[in-house]
Amino acid sequence: MKKTRLEAFSDGVFAIVITLLILNVRVPDGRNLTLQSLRPLVPPLATFVLSFIMVGIYWIAHHHMLHFITQVNRRLLWLNLLVLLCVVFIPFPTSLLGTGFNNPLAVRLYGLSLIATKVSGLFFWLYATAHRELIVPTVTKEFARHSGHDSLMYGLGVALAGWNTKTSLVLYAAVPLFFILPNPLLLLINSCNP
Amino acid sequence: MKKTRLEAFSDGVFAIVITLLILNVRVPDGRNLTLQSLRPLVPPLATFVLSFIMVGIYWIAHHHMLHFITQVNRRLLWLNLLVLLCVVFIPFPTSLLGTGFNNPLAVRLYGLSLIATKVSGLFFWLYATAHRELIVPTVTKEFARHSGHDSLMYGLGVALAGWNTKTSLVLYAAVPLFFILPNPLLLLINSCNP
Amino acid sequence: MKKTRLEAFSDGVFAIVITLLILNVRVPDGRNLTLQSLRPLVPPLATFVLSFIMVGIYWIAHHHMLHFITQVNRRLLWLNLLVLLCVVFIPFPTSLLGTGFNNPLAVRLYGLSLIATKVSGLFFWLYATAHRELIVPTVTKEFARHSGHDSLMYGLGVALAGWNTKTSLVLYAAVPLFFILPNPLLLLINSCNP
Amino acid sequence: MKKTRLEAFSDGVFAIVITLLILNVRVPDGRNLTLQSLRPLVPPLATFVLSFIMVGIYWIAHHHMLHFITQVNRRLLWLNLLVLLCVVFIPFPTSLLGTGFNNPLAVRLYGLSLIATKVSGLFFWLYATAHRELIVPTVTKEFARHSGHDSLMYGLGVALAGWNTKTSLVLYAAVPLFFILPNPLLLLINSCNP
Repeated sequence: MKKTRLEAFSDGVFAIVITLLILNVRVPDGRNLTLQSLRPLVPPLATFVLSFIMVGIYWIAHHHMLHFITQVNRRLLWLNLLVLLCVVFIPFPTSLLGTGFNNPLAVRLYGLSLIATKVSGLFFWLYATAHRELIVPTVTKEFARHSGHDSLMYGLGVALAGWNTKTSLVLYAAVPLFFILPNPLLLLINSCNP
Repeated sequence: MKKTRLEAFSDGVFAIVITLLILNVRVPDGRNLTLQSLRPLVPPLATFVLSFIMVGIYWIAHHHMLHFITQVNRRLLWLNLLVLLCVVFIPFPTSLLGTGFNNPLAVRLYGLSLIATKVSGLFFWLYATAHRELIVPTVTKEFARHSGHDSLMYGLGVALAGWNTKTSLVLYAAVPLFFILPNPLLLLINSCNP
Repeated sequence: MKKTRLEAFSDGVFAIVITLLILNVRVPDGRNLTLQSLRPLVPPLATFVLSFIMVGIYWIAHHHMLHFITQVNRRLLWLNLLVLLCVVFIPFPTSLLGTGFNNPLAVRLYGLSLIATKVSGLFFWLYATAHRELIVPTVTKEFARHSGHDSLMYGLGVALAGWNTKTSLVLYAAVPLFFILPNPLLLLINSCNP
Repeated sequence: MKKTRLEAFSDGVFAIVITLLILNVRVPDGRNLTLQSLRPLVPPLATFVLSFIMVGIYWIAHHHMLHFITQVNRRLLWLNLLVLLCVVFIPFPTSLLGTGFNNPLAVRLYGLSLIATKVSGLFFWLYATAHRELIVPTVTKEFARHSGHDSLMYGLGVALAGWNTKTSLVLYAAVPLFFILPNPLLLLINSCNP
């Protein structure tokens, strides 16, 4: 299995997941549409935007990781499929959260799904960095630490969902904001690419 | 992030969105199908064709823009995801318009969605042209002006929807017709490619 | 617009359409599933297989055409989008036919959709062959004649649907069989590729 | 038809099928979500994971086969479309099994669908190995034997579904486990690639 083929397949999966998210938002009948009837659509649409950004981040992170990979073996292939399994699953908790903005269980499941995706990416990365023949030699463990920070934020959101769901949602949304701003991962990549 | 990867991912998203549009048209039961029962399908099918052409145009415009880009940085990557967010959203107002051809709010939301996509493309382009290291040196601001014209047409459609929805729909449909015919953007591209 | 990009986008659309066809088959509840309850699924599943083969053929034919194209201009780009519009539409008449095997109108709409796709491909091909700068010089008009034959078969099916829908369906299914067997188009291609 | 194009199209189909599987799991209303209301989701989610792994395996096996192919002729192209037809069909029995975990017919149909995919892959491989101009000369028939073993396991599952559906499901799930662990196919590939 060549790395380019793995990338192309993963890119396809990411592109489909990011596009399917909108199908989760149930479209009301357009005939009697009023501003009033649009109000219940705010939570599903907000969840759509949040998950879109999340999948976008995972796609970028996936590329950053593969950028340093030089070779793909059987185990890494299956760890990549584990990452994709988590990504493909995201529309499900997204859809649950769309109707369950105030339901602690729906909020928790969404957070747990984000953590699972992060952790699967971490497994992928730890395996790759532990097998130096699969990866460029200049890579440090910085990325793993970064992934841990994100998971902590999501974990805090999951823990607080029983107390106040809005706090949890703010915590979830804070991570993408942190990611869109410049961060240590980017510096790492810049320093590795002459 | 290499430019080719960004292109492949964006192409994937455009291809999926353009194909999903037909899923918005609810299929009647084939057993008792009559010409009469096909009549309510005319608005959703017309909307499908309109949105297909719109997404086709955005895909072509996206390629034209990326054609001049020489390098992708973090900000441009996120501006591209903003464009894709708008494109991925299009099936939703398309579906609303399919049942709400005579509903001013549905017509307005469709027009606003088109404007959002145009404006996100404009942001992408203005950022790229403001950072000359990302773009070939011969590019002018012509494209931005063109994008502004389209948005104006859509804006007029949005404004007139409360008065007469059919006028708005004609204005929306006029833009693709204008695009399919030869236009200044094409001339610009021809003059930049020796 | 480079030819490879047009191919990749078209391939994406074909791959998505061919995969979405199965979504048209409504899945019964698995709890009380009996052989009896599977019987009404035979027409939708047969239609799924038929449309799968049709889209497969269009994909192969599309590649054969693009194989001879050397350059893509604006008009050819839009004619290609017209072909894709017809291909993307196919799930709709497929779904209608799935429930309306005995309904002449559903059978006719399916046949008309096939003809529209063939004719759009013909437009694409006639335009390309009329502009010799877009195409390799050894190409003959053989392909167009072949496309005409298929459309005639479908047209016969459409005409006879009011008399007997089963005859029409046999005529539709005969075309793929004819295609899967070796045919003049293949000979043409072999003779053009040294 | 070049081999790379066939690979890209097939990759697209695999990526879409693997992503569509989650759409089969009906999302409950998030407003009144309780742990109790999540219980009926366990079978569809387990089926989703099982089918995800199956499609992942077929994707990897498809690549292994294409790795040895040097040329694609018309027949091989159609045999590849037959494989893709079986793969595209998988969401249907997956959805049936999701609600029909205890229904022998649903369990059988799932197993038969897996066998059909294996057998179509076998046809592809037997045709390729029988035409030595299509394939690298060092390939042995090992892969075919491996495919036969899997089909036997699935066949046993199909046969036992009338007696105990859980035994069948364990047999189905055992095959991926066997695949994820190192196996003869991998050794074959390693020995062919210097």
